[in-house]
Amino acid sequence: MARINDHYLKLKAGYLFPEIGRRVTEFTKANPQAKVIRLGIGDVTRPLAPAVIQAFHQAIDDLGTTENFAGYGPEQGYEWLSQVIIDKSYKPLGVELTTNEIFISDGSKCDCANILDIFALDNVVAIGDPVYPVYNDTNVMVGRTGEADEKGYYKGIVYMPFTADNNFIPDLPKEEVDIIYLCYPNNPTGTVASKEELKKWVDYARANDAVIFFDAAYEAFITTPGIPHSIYEIEGAKECAIEFRSFSKTAGFTGVRCGLVVVPEQLTGTTASGEKYNLNRLWKRRVTTKFNGASYPVQRAAAAVYSDEGWQQTRDIIAYYMKNARIIREGLQAAGVECYGGVDAPYIWLKTPKGMNSWEFFDKLLNECHVVGTPGSGFGPSGEGYFRLSAFGERSNVETAVQRIRNTWGK
Amino acid sequence: MARINDHYLKLKAGYLFPEIGRRVTEFTKANPQAKVIRLGIGDVTRPLAPAVIQAFHQAIDDLGTTENFAGYGPEQGYEWLSQVIIDKSYKPLGVELTTNEIFISDGSKCDCANILDIFALDNVVAIGDPVYPVYNDTNVMVGRTGEADEKGYYKGIVYMPFTADNNFIPDLPKEEVDIIYLCYPNNPTGTVASKEELKKWVDYARANDAVIFFDAAYEAFITTPGIPHSIYEIEGAKECAIEFRSFSKTAGFTGVRCGLVVVPEQLTGTTASGEKYNLNRLWKRRVTTKFNGASYPVQRAAAAVYSDEGWQQTRDIIAYYMKNARIIREGLQAAGVECYGGVDAPYIWLKTPKGMNSWEFFDKLLNECHVVGTPGSGFGPSGEGYFRLSAFGERSNVETAVQRIRNTWGK
Repeated sequence: MARINDHYLKLKAGYLFPEIGRRVTEFTKANPQAKVIRLGIGDVTRPLAPAVIQAFHQAIDDLGTTENFAGYGPEQGYEWLSQVIIDKSYKPLGVELTTNEIFISDGSKCDCANILDIFALDNVVAIGDPVYPVYNDTNVMVGRTGEADEKGYYKGIVYMPFTADNNFIPDLPKEEVDIIYLCYPNNPTGTVASKEELKKWVDYARANDAVIFFDAAYEAFITTPGIPHSIYEIEGAKECAIEFRSFSKTAGFTGVRCGLVVVPEQLTGTTASGEKYNLNRLWKRRVTTKFNGASYPVQRAAAAVYSDEGWQQTRDIIAYYMKNARIIREGLQAAGVECYGGVDAPYIWLKTPKGMNSWEFFDKLLNECHVVGTPGSGFGPSGEGYFRLSAFGERSNVETAVQRIRNTWGK
Repeated sequence: MARINDHYLKLKAGYLFPEIGRRVTEFTKANPQAKVIRLGIGDVTRPLAPAVIQAFHQAIDDLGTTENFAGYGPEQGYEWLSQVIIDKSYKPLGVELTTNEIFISDGSKCDCANILDIFALDNVVAIGDPVYPVYNDTNVMVGRTGEADEKGYYKGIVYMPFTADNNFIPDLPKEEVDIIYLCYPNNPTGTVASKEELKKWVDYARANDAVIFFDAAYEAFITTPGIPHSIYEIEGAKECAIEFRSFSKTAGFTGVRCGLVVVPEQLTGTTASGEKYNLNRLWKRRVTTKFNGASYPVQRAAAAVYSDEGWQQTRDIIAYYMKNARIIREGLQAAGVECYGGVDAPYIWLKTPKGMNSWEFFDKLLNECHVVGTPGSGFGPSGEGYFRLSAFGERSNVETAVQRIRNTWGK
């Protein structure tokens, strides 16, 4: 008799975005004339950079010929892609890596989820609150937690509140933890951490033999000089951190699918018998057994992001989104709304006006401004009373949305 | 202190293909003039069909425009792809499915591995011997087994020998099992199962509330009328089977990456409290949380396989490979070598001559004929004394390889 993984039954039924979709559908049915502007989900809208398109086409042509045809590639990705990532994304930061430490994937969501495979179930995990829900849910699914309490906290996970009160930099946990998820620039709050702040975590991890999962999916959006783009800018981080990066937001690859994981050679975990074991080797075994490499033309397209042309074009697209972010942030501030982020990240995290809760604000924004955002409470209990707006829209939509918000609240 | 998943340490260090690579490299270093022909790994060599290439280019162009840009798609794949798969691949077999039952992925290797996520660890799993190593290794990695014995059998897995003695159709296991892996047309043996033979398994699964994982990656290579292409051609299979399909071999997508899983709505597993639970819902939760959909242009390319032109072109490529298979099979038989498969599958499974073991034959074939194949023992203990040749090569290479084999053994 086949038995299911009962841990799945602990998950809350309604995932955030389906519930948003339901409410928007209901509203548009009742108000078919309303022009709804979506600044909710963090999905890009601009076309791919021309240099990326060109490389993509070239790779398709390769697949149409016997001479250049590409079948199974290396499961951890082509070296020509890993090398250019090292040269263009890490060397300028002073971070030395080898291609053996880079694992190309079909996206960061998969990586953040799959990395749990190589760790024992009895590790204690610390995650932010609010947080990208995948960190939380995947730990529930593998059976690392008990049931959720009425607030939504799962027994066994150490939650680290991120709020304006602590400047969105959580305190070190009081309990001893083994695995720590950090995401900077942060989703959903759009805030960043300085080198000193990250050093606190690296020092903690080294002192406790803990491992940091550092999600740097939004590093390309950093504009403030001195803010670290990689955890490896912090001394000793190679001994304690795995870094996740993504082409989704950096180069508009949400539909194209490419990401990467860095697992430094120095990084170890501990076996049941107390010995140190190389995590790079363990992850390589995972990748070679359960994955068959990212799509060849996708990897060619990803490599083109690092060509001189591709780099400039993708930076221009990021600048476009960051101008949106500024318009939203300044518009909200002019309307007297307290807000965070939007300087080094494509998300603006606002404090809901007049003590509304997140879903009340969602409904009000939808009904009065015809603008869709994401309720902060959907990212965790400490997100209650906050709200996320994304800067990934078209400029004219962003401007209209901000104008509507100012007309409603800007008194 | 971060602890590793110790189950990984039970895995045998040397995976099959790296060891083959090592021996071939050693040989070519010592014999730089030798023209080595590789019929080992099951990787395709022919270019993609022109209609597929065209659709792929069109999808790249979509990504270059604001109007047609595709960001995040549905995690379980676009409905236009699922629907055409149903219409062209399942309806002609008399199998009715809905798009909700189809999950598009980045490849069948991932699917076969990931499906274990939704099942409890205490299920007893039955796998073939010899077998595609991923079935075995992924069960070891999640911790379903004990250590391997000296033959390579892991404690806790029920192995079902596939040999010429049972006509490559294993007997029903004597122990009660909960999950059964079946792969037809079979990798590595190239053999097939009739409807009557599959019915035996479906009946067993229904009687025992077991679930069959049916790997149909090679169904497009079936040439014999009446051989089932899908497990769902067997009455009652929707109540007990998950089917895996792949574009890798069907349409030459080994480097492009696309596969699919069918999880019928009727299919249930049992919860710890003894209730039936919908597996489609469980898998959907897994897919939406841990995966972000297959690449948009890849899905467009996959859909083009089902256009009239694309279908004819991909069938022609399959016919090319199957002619290779016939040349290999007939050549071996003419040389007095006992062999199986190669009629409804792109693999020929030969009995090694003169009682050589699989690696002895590998070395002899490499040294005397400069041909690389895959030792049967690499797929499991019952593969000892067998050897796999793949029909995915270029015609002239296949002909040369067969001629060399006939010159060596054909007396």
